[in-house]
Amino acid sequence: MNDFVFQNKTKIIFGKDSEERLASLLTPYNSRVLLVYGGGSIKESGLYDKIVSMLNDNGIKFSELSGIIPNPRLRKVYEGIELCRSENIGFILAVGGGSVIDTAKAVSAGVRYDGDVWDFFEGKAELQACLPIGVVLTIPAAGSESSPSLVITKEEGLLKRDYSHNELRPQFAIMNPELTYSLPFYQTACGISDMLAHIMERYFTKTEHVDVSDRLCEGLMRAIISNAKLVKQNPDDYNARAEIMWAGTLAHNDLIGMGRETDWASHAIEHELSAVYDIAHGAGLSIIFPAWMKHVYREDEERFVQFAQRVMDVEFPNSMVYETIMEGISRLENFYTCIGLPTRLSAVGIDSSRLEEMAKKANSCGRFKRLDASDIYKIYRLALE
Amino acid sequence: MNDFVFQNKTKIIFGKDSEERLASLLTPYNSRVLLVYGGGSIKESGLYDKIVSMLNDNGIKFSELSGIIPNPRLRKVYEGIELCRSENIGFILAVGGGSVIDTAKAVSAGVRYDGDVWDFFEGKAELQACLPIGVVLTIPAAGSESSPSLVITKEEGLLKRDYSHNELRPQFAIMNPELTYSLPFYQTACGISDMLAHIMERYFTKTEHVDVSDRLCEGLMRAIISNAKLVKQNPDDYNARAEIMWAGTLAHNDLIGMGRETDWASHAIEHELSAVYDIAHGAGLSIIFPAWMKHVYREDEERFVQFAQRVMDVEFPNSMVYETIMEGISRLENFYTCIGLPTRLSAVGIDSSRLEEMAKKANSCGRFKRLDASDIYKIYRLALE
Repeated sequence: MNDFVFQNKTKIIFGKDSEERLASLLTPYNSRVLLVYGGGSIKESGLYDKIVSMLNDNGIKFSELSGIIPNPRLRKVYEGIELCRSENIGFILAVGGGSVIDTAKAVSAGVRYDGDVWDFFEGKAELQACLPIGVVLTIPAAGSESSPSLVITKEEGLLKRDYSHNELRPQFAIMNPELTYSLPFYQTACGISDMLAHIMERYFTKTEHVDVSDRLCEGLMRAIISNAKLVKQNPDDYNARAEIMWAGTLAHNDLIGMGRETDWASHAIEHELSAVYDIAHGAGLSIIFPAWMKHVYREDEERFVQFAQRVMDVEFPNSMVYETIMEGISRLENFYTCIGLPTRLSAVGIDSSRLEEMAKKANSCGRFKRLDASDIYKIYRLALE
Repeated sequence: MNDFVFQNKTKIIFGKDSEERLASLLTPYNSRVLLVYGGGSIKESGLYDKIVSMLNDNGIKFSELSGIIPNPRLRKVYEGIELCRSENIGFILAVGGGSVIDTAKAVSAGVRYDGDVWDFFEGKAELQACLPIGVVLTIPAAGSESSPSLVITKEEGLLKRDYSHNELRPQFAIMNPELTYSLPFYQTACGISDMLAHIMERYFTKTEHVDVSDRLCEGLMRAIISNAKLVKQNPDDYNARAEIMWAGTLAHNDLIGMGRETDWASHAIEHELSAVYDIAHGAGLSIIFPAWMKHVYREDEERFVQFAQRVMDVEFPNSMVYETIMEGISRLENFYTCIGLPTRLSAVGIDSSRLEEMAKKANSCGRFKRLDASDIYKIYRLALE
């Protein structure tokens, strides 16, 4: 097991009607709030009105940054930073999913930085001071509600880059599973794919003797898979929605990755894909992850056998190593298919025309197996059809 | 799944030589430190000298509270509170295991409270202000290094009582698995029993649909059991020591119990036992838990079958419910025996003479099944031989 440091300050307020505690969580900051959200969904659901009423009733002044889109853009971050400065904002409240939260984090990082906030994403600056952030989560997926990380896309060149700093963990995350009932199932499924990927990026490691975190990863994956099927059957199943929502947080708050090297190649490869084609991140991951597995499994067959056996319940004889590994990957693909996600690029209308370009842009990535552009090209080809 | 609130501020610094970061962790508090520890072991191992040198080299003034014993006593807490007040202590550093940390927490709670610190344990007061605490962990067992709870024994009447407050979570916990090499195996085994019990107190619940936390509990138990056997074979196995140490923290930092009612009857029943007979807490638990299971399994046979199958690998036909449950309990007993722990009162020289008295003192306890004095007496009888 590797050495590690872990600290996660985020206060999780989980359960029915938990958003009603918002005002009491904001009051101690005694600041003007920037309310960050996406588009129509929180207005349609009534959540926007509920939050605005709570803020008004408690005398909490606020400004708004709305229209955040999936694969959130840098332009909105600049807009938010300007707003914070001109309106003397002291607290940022994100109401939404990963894109909204990541935008809030980027704004938080940029407000007290004199240079261009993109510097953080290019490794040219390290965070010194930021604004506190709170979250009302409506889409379980990215885990950004208690993670230190964020991903932003720069429009020029469609550069999708991430940054991470422990100070960017939200102060609190309000998580009411009922707020997720109205999510279209496809979006729910994309979120499930994202959280599974967050676990697998940590699970496939070269670090030896990581039993505790292996078991936590395996347990979370099993719980996600079984509850995803329940949500598909009944989108208003409170308990299944709750399990998925909580699992999404645990998948990406770093805890399950402590003491082990993590990979992140599939995320990097998918980021190029969704930057160029603007497909949903979760759908990109359900396409890329099985292809990545087929390309890298020889690096540690024992680990892939363990995945097949402990997560996918493959019970072939011990001698059938290759068959066990392939059956594990095949069952993962079947699960994605079962929840309506694509597992091939052709299924989302992507052909081979830009694969080389994306492979070059992804650069080298991955730690389970270090991948160069030719590896990444092969993975795109494996994902093709 | 039940509603919950979770926040754990403790910074975990885990790995080889992690104690060398102590001075940099203490410096920001800019305070005189109370160094709390047990007896000879940290002096024999050289850890005491190492810490004292670090404090001196960094100009950190300190006072000492030593001689903390297992099942730590209230008298030492009073002594620590007096020291803190008279020497203007601003930070409490616990170097040791659960007894030392719990003493530090009780002192922390008492310093700024005008009344008797025992009030907290009797439910007569609620914590308003406390001193910050840091930990250098040498015994993985109690999980007190990042938990909000503590247990103290009042000499008069041998009352063993607990208290819990989120503010009593330590600011940091330094965890170097190498510091645990020198623990006698019996003490290691008692720690392992304690952490298993912390998981099982949460695992056996009446709350329905708790897949995520079930899986986390099961995974941790499996990892603990397999690594306990490795430590027994080779006490200097770094990785196995590391897995046990990290599992002990996760077993009791509350995370795995979120969203579910927890039980704590076995702890209450054991507390009476170790208060009267002063046996090791972990040894008491390895005696009490199997007996508790035999008394309560009818409350939810399905959950006990799940335990037998998922944790203990019992693979009997589905029709053999009773046999599966009993085999699960039996394998737990075998595990305790394998690591040298008792599973019967007779094995530690306790006869039936004071069982009734202890049963009455334990009062009513437990949530999986609410137990009265007659239930508790039956559990003691089941544990007898």
